[in-house]
Amino acid sequence: MSETKLISGFSKLTKEEKIRLIASYTDDPESAEASIKLFWNSNPDIQKQFDEFSENTLTNYYFPYGVVPNVMINGNMHIVPMVIEESSVIAAASKSAKYWATRGGFHSEVISTTKIGQVHFIFTGDFGLLKSNFQHLRLLLLARSKQITANMEQRGGGVLGMELVDKTSDLEHYYQLKVSFDTRDSMGANFINSCLEEYAAGLRDYVNDSGLFAPGSIQIIMSILSNYTPDCLVKTWVECDIRELDDIEGSNSAEEFAWKFEKAVNIANIDVFRATTHNKGIFNGIDSVALATGNDFRAIEACGHAWAARDGNYRSLSEVSTDNGRFRFSLTLPMAIGTVGGLTSLHPMAKFSLNLLQNPGAPELMQIASTMGLANNFSALKSLTTKGIQVGHMKMHLLNILNVYKATEEEKVKAIEYFKSHKVSHNEVAAFMHSVRLTNPKH
Amino acid sequence: MSETKLISGFSKLTKEEKIRLIASYTDDPESAEASIKLFWNSNPDIQKQFDEFSENTLTNYYFPYGVVPNVMINGNMHIVPMVIEESSVIAAASKSAKYWATRGGFHSEVISTTKIGQVHFIFTGDFGLLKSNFQHLRLLLLARSKQITANMEQRGGGVLGMELVDKTSDLEHYYQLKVSFDTRDSMGANFINSCLEEYAAGLRDYVNDSGLFAPGSIQIIMSILSNYTPDCLVKTWVECDIRELDDIEGSNSAEEFAWKFEKAVNIANIDVFRATTHNKGIFNGIDSVALATGNDFRAIEACGHAWAARDGNYRSLSEVSTDNGRFRFSLTLPMAIGTVGGLTSLHPMAKFSLNLLQNPGAPELMQIASTMGLANNFSALKSLTTKGIQVGHMKMHLLNILNVYKATEEEKVKAIEYFKSHKVSHNEVAAFMHSVRLTNPKH
Repeated sequence: MSETKLISGFSKLTKEEKIRLIASYTDDPESAEASIKLFWNSNPDIQKQFDEFSENTLTNYYFPYGVVPNVMINGNMHIVPMVIEESSVIAAASKSAKYWATRGGFHSEVISTTKIGQVHFIFTGDFGLLKSNFQHLRLLLLARSKQITANMEQRGGGVLGMELVDKTSDLEHYYQLKVSFDTRDSMGANFINSCLEEYAAGLRDYVNDSGLFAPGSIQIIMSILSNYTPDCLVKTWVECDIRELDDIEGSNSAEEFAWKFEKAVNIANIDVFRATTHNKGIFNGIDSVALATGNDFRAIEACGHAWAARDGNYRSLSEVSTDNGRFRFSLTLPMAIGTVGGLTSLHPMAKFSLNLLQNPGAPELMQIASTMGLANNFSALKSLTTKGIQVGHMKMHLLNILNVYKATEEEKVKAIEYFKSHKVSHNEVAAFMHSVRLTNPKH
Repeated sequence: MSETKLISGFSKLTKEEKIRLIASYTDDPESAEASIKLFWNSNPDIQKQFDEFSENTLTNYYFPYGVVPNVMINGNMHIVPMVIEESSVIAAASKSAKYWATRGGFHSEVISTTKIGQVHFIFTGDFGLLKSNFQHLRLLLLARSKQITANMEQRGGGVLGMELVDKTSDLEHYYQLKVSFDTRDSMGANFINSCLEEYAAGLRDYVNDSGLFAPGSIQIIMSILSNYTPDCLVKTWVECDIRELDDIEGSNSAEEFAWKFEKAVNIANIDVFRATTHNKGIFNGIDSVALATGNDFRAIEACGHAWAARDGNYRSLSEVSTDNGRFRFSLTLPMAIGTVGGLTSLHPMAKFSLNLLQNPGAPELMQIASTMGLANNFSALKSLTTKGIQVGHMKMHLLNILNVYKATEEEKVKAIEYFKSHKVSHNEVAAFMHSVRLTNPKH
């Protein structure tokens, strides 16, 4: 619409009223309403729960929910749920999982689980004096957050450390109260933010009321957790004798495969154009698990990518070595993920996913998600360095293209057979459908 | 499960068989089957289409589909669909949209739309000779991709440029064929990859058959698009007189608000811990639009974050200035997004989203998505620098917590009233529900 009239009070409307209003802005309001309602759950109670997850909710957006069997991690088998709209991600993960299950499986180790939060403030007083009183201030702050931290402490977590950071070399008068947390199996955002807001108030009160500083010496800018968690780190790897890589389709030998694979990873380590795509493929696997378990993929993405740039160059998150005849392919990245809190137990399918995974704690879910990241990375590099990625990808996408042409079941069967020996492209599928319908014009 | 027996032929099973097998690995197979089927669409044809988007699909994973009205971009009003599981993202975007609609709205400009692809190769021949023959080779390669590019050229796109890049200073014998593309309104992954695989074959044939180089001088490592698209760039901004920022809740004055806001953005520009979270909030808005329109959010995330680190430090994607009494807040980032191809027309709700947006081209969708990124960033910083983020966030989350305690409608009404004047926390809600049920024990 090009008119600039404001819609007022939209959030206050009922869902039905919202839908009617939204539909009225489309070309065909009646069919718009029908499209929206087509995806409602038939059980109104269930639907209501989904409606309340967010605001101005009209309906559900479906994502395919699939599973990857045969995922062996540290000797244990898992069936891993993945939610992803991109074709071939689950197929690639499945192939990789099965391939490595016969070569010792995936190995994974959680290195650390510390989360970070910051109170950012501008301070014009004597920072040396503030710092020398910090042991005392620290106790005051911890006392103030007792009510918030009690529960988390019972679960074995809480505040791990607290420090004052002088950032004035970067920005005039800018300091941080930097706090580290153990949030156990929760991602911890609400817990950390609630603590920090209390610390901010405590810090301001201390500066203003202690008599040590001039009034107005402090301005709190903001208090918030950091999604950058370099000390919440998981490392996952596969390894085998290079000679065991002898059954890769499109490769002449195990040695050639290992050589090309190593080059491909090293290229992603030195070239940002390749690194971005390489890491994107890793997050295909990780995000699919994050989505399936009700976790916040934006937090995981932001953290992983920022970390990939930690030495000043954006690089591959995975590494490879082929020393002494051993092929070793590993992925190390920070990941703040939860198995309690947030949507993990509220979204029925997220809850189902966690059940299917045998109700892991956050560290186990870090291992599972990063395993799927490595699995997808392995599959992508295997395809890329041998037969190319398009053969497999377009075969997976074939059904989608056939659906564009509203192919019947019979036509789909014919097409799948035909494209076993022909290159799939949108044009080729169009030509194929055209010829099939010419010879069989009853369609 | 801890047994290590492989599941064979899983992908060949029917959906029913897959579900039965998966359910058998849970504690309660019957209820697991029921949970999975609860989310099937009642129309089998519709369900089948979703099943075919991906592999090993068992059911649908619901995401809340909501809308943000009052989004004014370059003078035109939009109702923007957003798909997001995180509470308060849509509410924040809505407030921001309405706020700026009365201050000139959002302004957005697509700076460039070039996509990149690479053929990565190891070459031990005379690179000078290859380079001096490149004008000729280039034409050979373009001739080879004619069949693939014909369609795209008809739509006004195609191959924009092609160059040989010497990367041997980073990795021995490593070179690239770097190709730039215009993929019009499509994201272009399949098109670019198909072209590149053809170029890789052509390059290999040329080196091997031209007689200029020793046999075996070239090894193609891989051919693939880059998700890093620094020349597919959109810039979006809002601006107004600082004095117009006089109605911000929790702020003492327009000047104080602008001062704090500027500090908050500048902090995100110099501190990676803050920058990560800051940009994460921007992607809350962008990804919601990407999801709602069937776009690949992993590609958009990887590109944006890698770009945020382009100068060697991972920084804020948004910038602010307050010169000459003007508040100007802008977001610039690269974004490869499409409005044709992929799932955009296959997913019924993605198609609906694009209809609701008046069927934009890719450049318009870049503007819309980045606008929602800036809108969410503005709202987050506004809350953070004034009343803090937890008040609003926990209020949005209140219904979710109440659902954990299976609150009745009556209890929800009471709780919403009570928490208008009390701080929401999981503990406080638990205590409230406890007291409500004590005084009203019929529950």
